[in-house]
Amino acid sequence: MKATATANSNIALVKYWGKRDERLILPQNSSISMTLDGLYTTTTAEFSEKHRKDEVTIDGKKVAGEELDRVVRQLNLVRRLAKTHLSAKVTSKNNFPKAAGLASSASGFAALTLAATKALGLHIEKKELSMLARQGSGSACRSIYGGFAEWVKGSHHDGSDSYAKQLAPKEHWPELAMIVSVVTAEEKKVKSRAGMSQTVANSPMYRAWLETVEEDLKNVREAIMERKFTQLGTAAELNALKMHATMHTTTPHIIYWQPETITMMKEVMQMHEEGIECYFTIDGGPQVKIVCMDKNAGKIAKRVKGMAEVEKVYVCHAGEGARLSNKELF
Amino acid sequence: MKATATANSNIALVKYWGKRDERLILPQNSSISMTLDGLYTTTTAEFSEKHRKDEVTIDGKKVAGEELDRVVRQLNLVRRLAKTHLSAKVTSKNNFPKAAGLASSASGFAALTLAATKALGLHIEKKELSMLARQGSGSACRSIYGGFAEWVKGSHHDGSDSYAKQLAPKEHWPELAMIVSVVTAEEKKVKSRAGMSQTVANSPMYRAWLETVEEDLKNVREAIMERKFTQLGTAAELNALKMHATMHTTTPHIIYWQPETITMMKEVMQMHEEGIECYFTIDGGPQVKIVCMDKNAGKIAKRVKGMAEVEKVYVCHAGEGARLSNKELF
Repeated sequence: MKATATANSNIALVKYWGKRDERLILPQNSSISMTLDGLYTTTTAEFSEKHRKDEVTIDGKKVAGEELDRVVRQLNLVRRLAKTHLSAKVTSKNNFPKAAGLASSASGFAALTLAATKALGLHIEKKELSMLARQGSGSACRSIYGGFAEWVKGSHHDGSDSYAKQLAPKEHWPELAMIVSVVTAEEKKVKSRAGMSQTVANSPMYRAWLETVEEDLKNVREAIMERKFTQLGTAAELNALKMHATMHTTTPHIIYWQPETITMMKEVMQMHEEGIECYFTIDGGPQVKIVCMDKNAGKIAKRVKGMAEVEKVYVCHAGEGARLSNKELF
Repeated sequence: MKATATANSNIALVKYWGKRDERLILPQNSSISMTLDGLYTTTTAEFSEKHRKDEVTIDGKKVAGEELDRVVRQLNLVRRLAKTHLSAKVTSKNNFPKAAGLASSASGFAALTLAATKALGLHIEKKELSMLARQGSGSACRSIYGGFAEWVKGSHHDGSDSYAKQLAPKEHWPELAMIVSVVTAEEKKVKSRAGMSQTVANSPMYRAWLETVEEDLKNVREAIMERKFTQLGTAAELNALKMHATMHTTTPHIIYWQPETITMMKEVMQMHEEGIECYFTIDGGPQVKIVCMDKNAGKIAKRVKGMAEVEKVYVCHAGEGARLSNKELF
């Protein structure tokens, strides 16, 4: 009745932006990500009669309110499958700052889903597991897989064909690196979830996002399969800028960028001009992630570390999918 | 054969962004601006047989290359009308940094056109003058008028119905203020002209810009006529963000924003939250202009002046149109 799982964060190269179903978390568009080896969440879940209600601790802090509710809803999904009403104790640890645009909800809900299903003795295939994780946090479905994953949007109303699949394992492209730097570890004012709904509802640029995302998916998918770095970086950079364009033009506008975000973007452009090929991508937060080849990662990380704005730098490569662990957190 | 004119800069509340004819400078969309009392260009033009070729001095520096060519082309237009081949000496002075996103080409070409036509003894109505100025720099056509002006895009191929007209004189709304701050007086890397063509050619967001600009025009026009400040600010802010969204998503991307731009935008949002109603607008450069009511202008200017990034602050109101002057520059 107790299990521990670890899942890595993933960074989208073609972003998930916009839901067609808020409750089931069905996306408006498919997305593609790289699972990162450097950033992960470990979660222990225990179901027992001794727990009178669900109790959740994240990074040493008991959570309440909306944050607790989201975990409880996810536990309910798993309890329904396992036909049990037992309450759970859940303890979770991130090795990086949460809610700062480093996809902690992706790794968090992937780890939670795997730990909870295992604790309740369910044996679930990865595809099903990704659909369960998806209902906790959309992008979590991609963290079930290592390497490179695509979340297929699907078309069914019940979400039964909206799942993630692996495009390629981490061994496929070990030369690819992603440099994640934390420019401010503050939690965000507007959660991705709220930002997304508002954008879909009223950004005049949202339709253009949807109309062109298929081309980005094709370009990025092909670039991964054929290890075409320039194609990957160019498409990912444009895709991120398009997503932010939809946010900047929603009413009221949502501007996740901070001054440091621009400094970093300009630094990436500067390095690129100097002949160090690299690209940026930005999620719903101020953090800039840099896509580059491993041979340049050290040089780029050093440049980035030297910037006054940067608190922390992680050099990542394609990492593992969600897995069980025996390092119990309690 | 010698005349001097002064024209004020103008800042668009609905931006001109994209040409349908590069040579005649015919825009894809109509635009609306406020002519500013604080920022202006004075130009003296003299045609004479003693000048062997056109000679142009701006802010004490002789200009050459593309900058000279643009002035010569404008002088050619005027010479054609006056049926003369005389060369000219032109001296021009801005009271603010040029080419830093403060619309120096708008005031500059408006002043040049008025000075040159007058020097050659042409008597031209404002509407015609605006069409001449337009061919030098699109937005210059709006600086012919004081107060608030609309540049009607027109539909003719020869540009004969693409001119500016006054929506309201400066006396109509003296309570409206615009605070212009220079966050960096560097000249821009990508000129608006080049940025514009590229955006029209390949930004996936450009169509949405065109599809929604009519609504912005309607909102801003009505807000000016009925002095509805909230409506004006909201529409202008969204319009500016939409323009930048088209630039951010063109390939290669054009990002005029600097870290200081974001700092200023956030400061405007912060003041607004604190109950000081104000809005930002941003042109093709890093400068942030703040639209506010005069009663708050002092308070806002003080806040802005206190920011480390700000080099200079101008508090402007609606200003005069282009006019002749007897303060010759040589």
